[in-house]
Amino acid sequence: MPATPKEPSLPSRERVFSGMRPTGRLHLGHLLGALPNWVRLQDDYDCIYCVADLHALTTRYDNVAGMKEDGIEMVADWIAVGIDPERSIIFRQSEVKAHSELALLLGMLTPVSWLTRSPSYKEMVAELGERVATFGFLGYPVLQTADVILYKASRVPVGEDQLSHLELAREIVRRFNSIYSPVFPAPQAILTETPRLLGLDGRKMSKSYGNTIDIAEDPESVRKKVMSMFTDPARQRLKDPGHPDKCNVFSYHHFFEAPAAELDEIDRGCRAATIGCTGCKQRLAGRILAVLDPIRERREELMAAPGRIEALLEDGRRRALAIATEVFGETCQAIGI
Amino acid sequence: MPATPKEPSLPSRERVFSGMRPTGRLHLGHLLGALPNWVRLQDDYDCIYCVADLHALTTRYDNVAGMKEDGIEMVADWIAVGIDPERSIIFRQSEVKAHSELALLLGMLTPVSWLTRSPSYKEMVAELGERVATFGFLGYPVLQTADVILYKASRVPVGEDQLSHLELAREIVRRFNSIYSPVFPAPQAILTETPRLLGLDGRKMSKSYGNTIDIAEDPESVRKKVMSMFTDPARQRLKDPGHPDKCNVFSYHHFFEAPAAELDEIDRGCRAATIGCTGCKQRLAGRILAVLDPIRERREELMAAPGRIEALLEDGRRRALAIATEVFGETCQAIGI
Repeated sequence: MPATPKEPSLPSRERVFSGMRPTGRLHLGHLLGALPNWVRLQDDYDCIYCVADLHALTTRYDNVAGMKEDGIEMVADWIAVGIDPERSIIFRQSEVKAHSELALLLGMLTPVSWLTRSPSYKEMVAELGERVATFGFLGYPVLQTADVILYKASRVPVGEDQLSHLELAREIVRRFNSIYSPVFPAPQAILTETPRLLGLDGRKMSKSYGNTIDIAEDPESVRKKVMSMFTDPARQRLKDPGHPDKCNVFSYHHFFEAPAAELDEIDRGCRAATIGCTGCKQRLAGRILAVLDPIRERREELMAAPGRIEALLEDGRRRALAIATEVFGETCQAIGI
Repeated sequence: MPATPKEPSLPSRERVFSGMRPTGRLHLGHLLGALPNWVRLQDDYDCIYCVADLHALTTRYDNVAGMKEDGIEMVADWIAVGIDPERSIIFRQSEVKAHSELALLLGMLTPVSWLTRSPSYKEMVAELGERVATFGFLGYPVLQTADVILYKASRVPVGEDQLSHLELAREIVRRFNSIYSPVFPAPQAILTETPRLLGLDGRKMSKSYGNTIDIAEDPESVRKKVMSMFTDPARQRLKDPGHPDKCNVFSYHHFFEAPAAELDEIDRGCRAATIGCTGCKQRLAGRILAVLDPIRERREELMAAPGRIEALLEDGRRRALAIATEVFGETCQAIGI
């Protein structure tokens, strides 16, 4: 019998794992949110980005139509904004069987009480109803843990609200390592702050509210939507002084990185009522399109070649599988099955 | 899009699926219990018998040493008593990945409440303690359902006490078929009554009580154990009249199929105190050994060839995998992943 290693055998370069459910085309919230982090992380880590179709089933099990196409659209957006499929591994979760296998094994040693106490489980059931109170949904954090450690990823980019999930993953890892042998590193958070970009109507940005602009949206549509944005409700007429600090359009100027001098000019012009909302929105549309145009062009190029994204996902699948097979083999050896 | 089939596509011959956890050598309880049914079913069905090592982990996750060897010993017993590895498929559950994959998918649509209301979950947690109240143990019936339907097995040999599990499996199947498309037949019970053979000490027969005789036990040890069996407690001396209806040894004579005339003779002799317990037990030892001797010989032959059982399991794995791959493919197509 080989000597039990005292520390997990680690990949030569630290790995980052993250994923998104296949929700179809991504919007400005993603463009300013998770994606720039994903792009940046590629410089310092080996990154693995996963189309989390199994996770999608936890709440979408009875509404699966078009999920494959949704994944393709999403991956096209990823690549268009700068996720590099040569440096990073991009693949579909359901195509690497060991995600399910490892989740099953981790479930054996995860107390039900760790899962039912999870705030997001209770919240989601309260929000979405008993329909989602399934075994699979309860086990979401177990599958998520399997996703990450199947690649011995030591780093996971998360927002503040997901820290409790990551802590649960670390608890599961510690329990596995202590029962069997120390196969897995406990993943650590890369805490990322993302701008709180609101929807066009000032509510939380969400596809289901219809208040988003897609990353690859047609320029005419972008213009129209920007022109329809809610502004400072106290400014009814051009001559009313505005309150940029309460105006969603102004916050967009800020998040889309208007130069300081221009922000200052808009701020003063709005308060003095020398700049009108229409002009302000036209500028914003131009500013957003300056960001979106090159992304949309790269995306169109990508989608023009039929089967291109599928081919990239197939390449990613093979590379993910190679790592997963090795790590899962180590896992089975540690357990003795 | 292909037309949705209205009925599941079924194998040409009905399939039976059953499994046992790898507990090591089997004992007389198995010999007179599940195994003769398994042997008989081979005449009428295509049978798939599985070493349920993943199930074993639900309660044995922290005590896995020797599980692989335990599986080998158990399979040797199966074959020695007449499970035919050419007619039937014998394989290890963990070696066909689709068990885990299908279990994960079924979990997505299985309400947690169906599992927590299961009487055996509550009972086992009460009996074995919080240690077993894990996510994997809660999901036991989901994995069990996956096991059966992954082969479109329509028949499952069960005892009365397992009928509620099978009903749960049927509910999960109905839900899957109604949400997606009718891929799976709802498995039906083959209700099997098994003799209630008690342990040597009169308690429930269980390895953990140390009151069993192994199927392949050494003849000397069988004799010794039979001679140590508890008999009618009211019969202290040879001259005391016995009560065969309260005597465990007498029930063994019955279950090991003593001819009616001999049973009658023992019954009368015991009541009249003309037959002593020692003589009665010697007869029983002979009777049991007449059954065990040829089994033990077949088993020794089997184990004499190194790697023979592993080779049979490898053959079974390949045959199981062929069916599982096809059915799991149909499953994914139905879901759309």
